[in-house]
Amino acid sequence: MSFKATVLTLYPEMFPGPLGISLAGRALEAGAWSMEAVQIRDFAADKHRTVDDTPAGGGAGMVLKVDVLAAAIDHARGLNPDAPVLTMTPRGRPLDQARVRELASGPGAIVLCGRFEGFDERIFEGRDVEEVSVGDIVLSGGEPAALMLLDACIRLLPGVMGAASSGVEESFENGLLEYPHFTRPAIWEGRTIPEVLRSGDHAKIAAWRKRRSEDDTRLRRPDLWERHGDVRGQPASGARHDDEGTGT
Amino acid sequence: MSFKATVLTLYPEMFPGPLGISLAGRALEAGAWSMEAVQIRDFAADKHRTVDDTPAGGGAGMVLKVDVLAAAIDHARGLNPDAPVLTMTPRGRPLDQARVRELASGPGAIVLCGRFEGFDERIFEGRDVEEVSVGDIVLSGGEPAALMLLDACIRLLPGVMGAASSGVEESFENGLLEYPHFTRPAIWEGRTIPEVLRSGDHAKIAAWRKRRSEDDTRLRRPDLWERHGDVRGQPASGARHDDEGTGT
Repeated sequence: MSFKATVLTLYPEMFPGPLGISLAGRALEAGAWSMEAVQIRDFAADKHRTVDDTPAGGGAGMVLKVDVLAAAIDHARGLNPDAPVLTMTPRGRPLDQARVRELASGPGAIVLCGRFEGFDERIFEGRDVEEVSVGDIVLSGGEPAALMLLDACIRLLPGVMGAASSGVEESFENGLLEYPHFTRPAIWEGRTIPEVLRSGDHAKIAAWRKRRSEDDTRLRRPDLWERHGDVRGQPASGARHDDEGTGT
Repeated sequence: MSFKATVLTLYPEMFPGPLGISLAGRALEAGAWSMEAVQIRDFAADKHRTVDDTPAGGGAGMVLKVDVLAAAIDHARGLNPDAPVLTMTPRGRPLDQARVRELASGPGAIVLCGRFEGFDERIFEGRDVEEVSVGDIVLSGGEPAALMLLDACIRLLPGVMGAASSGVEESFENGLLEYPHFTRPAIWEGRTIPEVLRSGDHAKIAAWRKRRSEDDTRLRRPDLWERHGDVRGQPASGARHDDEGTGT
């Protein structure tokens, strides 16, 4: 049974879009995943096919109606019964590679895309919708984020990446950022490839990469580094100062 | 002069893609922004149009060649001389709404999309490329993230959102998550809209929204809440009832 993506959107013509091209597109053709974009408007109850209404209490913008959203989600659950329902909201739990791996190893995902000011709040508990965040930014709708979420899942599906690439030795898979890469030419505009990488000494190369991976994580992402230390059950060696708990 | 997006990619056919539809698509037609997708492969120097090579020091995957990337960036800078060059990497600085606002108020953006294992490290300093992260996830390429970054910018361009929607009263604009929304019906599956929102008392409604916005931020995103406190120059916790209302 392959990974099944069901997207709930007011713009089904955005899908598969970029996911129909390149790696994800070839995987779609090969049947490694399937996708269905469902028009939320089809679940409006009135003849004007109304999906939104003015916010209770006043204010700018329009809010997606809970009854329409619930009907669309119920329909999607019929199509994709075992998949979780996710939506991208600024206040959601930050999406991370661990969650992506879980999703990719499951039956698929139902992805609800917001538009306008957002959703009627009651949908989240009323239909068990998981809120995930793809960064502290605001989009015109959930669709670009849905494409990104699905891309992250699809590349991990069996057979998609092939032997040439690897899902193991990359950022976040071990709680660290990946080490930097270099390739020919050996000298470019006076900048050289680090000597060790041209040494042929595999142990030295592995040690250099491990150190760079750790150094980059500690310097660029102290929050990741802290968590990495926690996972190892020992203090992270670079975590000695300004430990304020949550700092990003 | 309108916002100019120049995307460097091995898959120019992915653009404008979803950005050619809906809000961003109408803004593109109206000339609020323009976009050009440049094929990186056109800057390969050999007859096979090679863009990648094996990693120095060994390992899986292929690395994008620095000389090809540099030539493509130089070309893009000719097309879009005043725009910053950005690329999405897991180790980049997390993209936030403040950076999105800066970009949207500038001349545009040159967005470099990676594929394969990544870029030859020397490109970042050799061509002043700004690395931004769109979350702790790994994508098959930078393209889905580029679409998201551009969508976030485009909606903020003058005239794009119109009077009905607002770029002011939303998540992150005041360092907080937005308050929850509700709309008709007043009762749905036994769940009601909070009484205060139906009271017509604008001061009470504003106070409720402010409190919900603060509570949600504190509970769901303690990191944001800490920074919010820092910005105000006072401790975050406990200081929330007496500050100047910035958003709601």
